[in-house]
Amino acid sequence: MLSQAKQKWIRSLELKKFRQEQGLFLAEGSKCCLDLLELLPCRFLAATTDWLETHPGLRAAEIVEASTEEIRKASLLKNPQEVLAVFETPSYEPTAEGLNGKLSLALDNIQDPGNLGTILRIADWFGIRNVICSIGTVDAFNPKTVQATMGAIGRIRLSYTDLPAFLDSVQLPVYGTFLEGEILYDANLQNEGIIVMGNEGNGISKAVETLVTNKLFIPDFPIGATGSESLNVSVATAIVCSEFRRRARMKF
Amino acid sequence: MLSQAKQKWIRSLELKKFRQEQGLFLAEGSKCCLDLLELLPCRFLAATTDWLETHPGLRAAEIVEASTEEIRKASLLKNPQEVLAVFETPSYEPTAEGLNGKLSLALDNIQDPGNLGTILRIADWFGIRNVICSIGTVDAFNPKTVQATMGAIGRIRLSYTDLPAFLDSVQLPVYGTFLEGEILYDANLQNEGIIVMGNEGNGISKAVETLVTNKLFIPDFPIGATGSESLNVSVATAIVCSEFRRRARMKF
Repeated sequence: MLSQAKQKWIRSLELKKFRQEQGLFLAEGSKCCLDLLELLPCRFLAATTDWLETHPGLRAAEIVEASTEEIRKASLLKNPQEVLAVFETPSYEPTAEGLNGKLSLALDNIQDPGNLGTILRIADWFGIRNVICSIGTVDAFNPKTVQATMGAIGRIRLSYTDLPAFLDSVQLPVYGTFLEGEILYDANLQNEGIIVMGNEGNGISKAVETLVTNKLFIPDFPIGATGSESLNVSVATAIVCSEFRRRARMKF
Repeated sequence: MLSQAKQKWIRSLELKKFRQEQGLFLAEGSKCCLDLLELLPCRFLAATTDWLETHPGLRAAEIVEASTEEIRKASLLKNPQEVLAVFETPSYEPTAEGLNGKLSLALDNIQDPGNLGTILRIADWFGIRNVICSIGTVDAFNPKTVQATMGAIGRIRLSYTDLPAFLDSVQLPVYGTFLEGEILYDANLQNEGIIVMGNEGNGISKAVETLVTNKLFIPDFPIGATGSESLNVSVATAIVCSEFRRRARMKF
């Protein structure tokens, strides 16, 4: 049984304040919970009897059987699933040396939780392990982002830091997309460096722009012919990451 | 003044049934309305006095000044803007010949309005004029999709048709993404053909799969190393379209 106190505790994890105080976050749905159970310590799991029977041998500090109705009351989703679980929030401290030899992603004030989730899923797909977020970026452990990452949030080494100061400390190329940048497909792309993606409305901030060493542009087709002024930030992230990885494959 | 009857009429356009009966759809927000005013006949526009003063010379069958409160009552958005407008829904009949020499997109039962909007914006960016949707694809003129396209919906030639029958009638290469496909970056990509993108959960349907002539795969990096099982459909669309257009540029 999922007590009312536990329901309330679970719902409290919708708020960043409570997530940070407790160092915990909520995941919902079978795929997401099962993926994260392989990756992170699970503090609490509530699921229907059916789900628990089909998934024996789970590792969690506490497991309770709950009715569909109890899960619905605890859930933050419009369409509650048959399982939800509370995990310990992983914590990483980015170091400049830790990024050497790797391709990493930096996010400069991404605001939309869904965009952030999609970006983390893209990073995971393209083998980008480290994602460094500016302090102003939306909290990745909010339920919408966790849901949108489809488990990728447990595989990415995610950190929040003073982004301009951090970028200033690294000795790697820093890439960013700008309308006046070099055409992505023609630019010299190394397989080591940091790709910065900017805010949905304002793009890359001035403080970060001065630290970008390689400005890139995703050309429309034919160049200048379209009416659209920009691409969604997660779409742009996908195109840039794909091109970096295409080049890396050519060098094998 | 925006009458209660007009407010009700505007809100009715949330429903596909009313949109189709009237051949009309709703757009909200300054950027979206201004873009569409250049592209489609506008049946009705309501805006605040301030907005109308800063945007003289608009072409619309009927223009009314409305208070913020009246617009809020008519709006389907959580955060209503200072202008909304009702446009005539454009209608196109796809023909196999009309797609010759062009790169086009076909959507096989895309369900999420936001995904569809993002895909249309990607098509617009990459100069893909024709988007052919299966009958089961979500209606593109629902307010969420219109909003997500950022005006692109007025530039794309969008049609709904029996997709397998249509694809069977064309003489062009038909591309689709599959886990067992050829690696996108290595595949032979023509600058003419149809790229099919499938449903969010189920991918490309069996009926359409048999008509795909070139199966493609967007490789993760390193191949097989990641835990993610797939990319979001709009993200996959972006990566595939970008690679087609990169190749096309190389041939100039």
